[in-house]
Amino acid sequence: MVDCLFCKIVKKEIPSYKVYEDKEFIAFLDIGPVNKGHTLVMPKNHSETFLDMNERELGKIMHFIQKVARAVVQGTKADGFNLMLNNKRAAGQLVDHAHFHIIPRFHSDGFKHWPQGKYQGNEAQQIADEIKRFL
Amino acid sequence: MVDCLFCKIVKKEIPSYKVYEDKEFIAFLDIGPVNKGHTLVMPKNHSETFLDMNERELGKIMHFIQKVARAVVQGTKADGFNLMLNNKRAAGQLVDHAHFHIIPRFHSDGFKHWPQGKYQGNEAQQIADEIKRFL
Repeated sequence: MVDCLFCKIVKKEIPSYKVYEDKEFIAFLDIGPVNKGHTLVMPKNHSETFLDMNERELGKIMHFIQKVARAVVQGTKADGFNLMLNNKRAAGQLVDHAHFHIIPRFHSDGFKHWPQGKYQGNEAQQIADEIKRFL
Repeated sequence: MVDCLFCKIVKKEIPSYKVYEDKEFIAFLDIGPVNKGHTLVMPKNHSETFLDMNERELGKIMHFIQKVARAVVQGTKADGFNLMLNNKRAAGQLVDHAHFHIIPRFHSDGFKHWPQGKYQGNEAQQIADEIKRFL
């Protein structure tokens, strides 16, 4: 798409610290890394969100992500990693071209996950039923 | 695996608020939700981490996740969602059976992402090169 930052990176119109690519996917460093080596993976084809990615891309991207994630861990000597996708602004998606974050993690890095709540009474079953209506 | 909490849920030895399942994958509510409707998706087959998941599972799980994520958004009337996988303890993995989190998000929920850093000088290129050695 003409005005998409990531499409421009895919087409090499904007430079990036590329880590890997194949015919359909590309991986390059996030220039604002949570930890150094934080890598973005995306389909080259423009999809606004993950929910817009097509069947073929869905069937192939996890092999690509697994391969890149393994290399990120090895190349940064990380103790683990997070794989994260933010779908829409409310979830922190800043560029409207579906992309995954691979964030190398270290025992000492101190990042905490969001706090977890609890369900009261019958609430969990009600919510599960509400989701199941759409499946 | 005998002592795996999620294998026991898969085999219905432990109850869960199941949202959906097919032959290979299952989705059920996280009982400690970041937001209500927070759903876990995993292969039924035991893999300790995402890096241990096999080719066939990798090729199929994203279709399953996309379908469930769409239903989570619809069922919770969310404004977006995060898809997250924690690989190993350093990344927050608490159960050693690979699983993805689908976390419904709302404009008003106030959760913040981890702060982003910067690369200095030639550092980004050096790190990209280090990762590329393993690809």
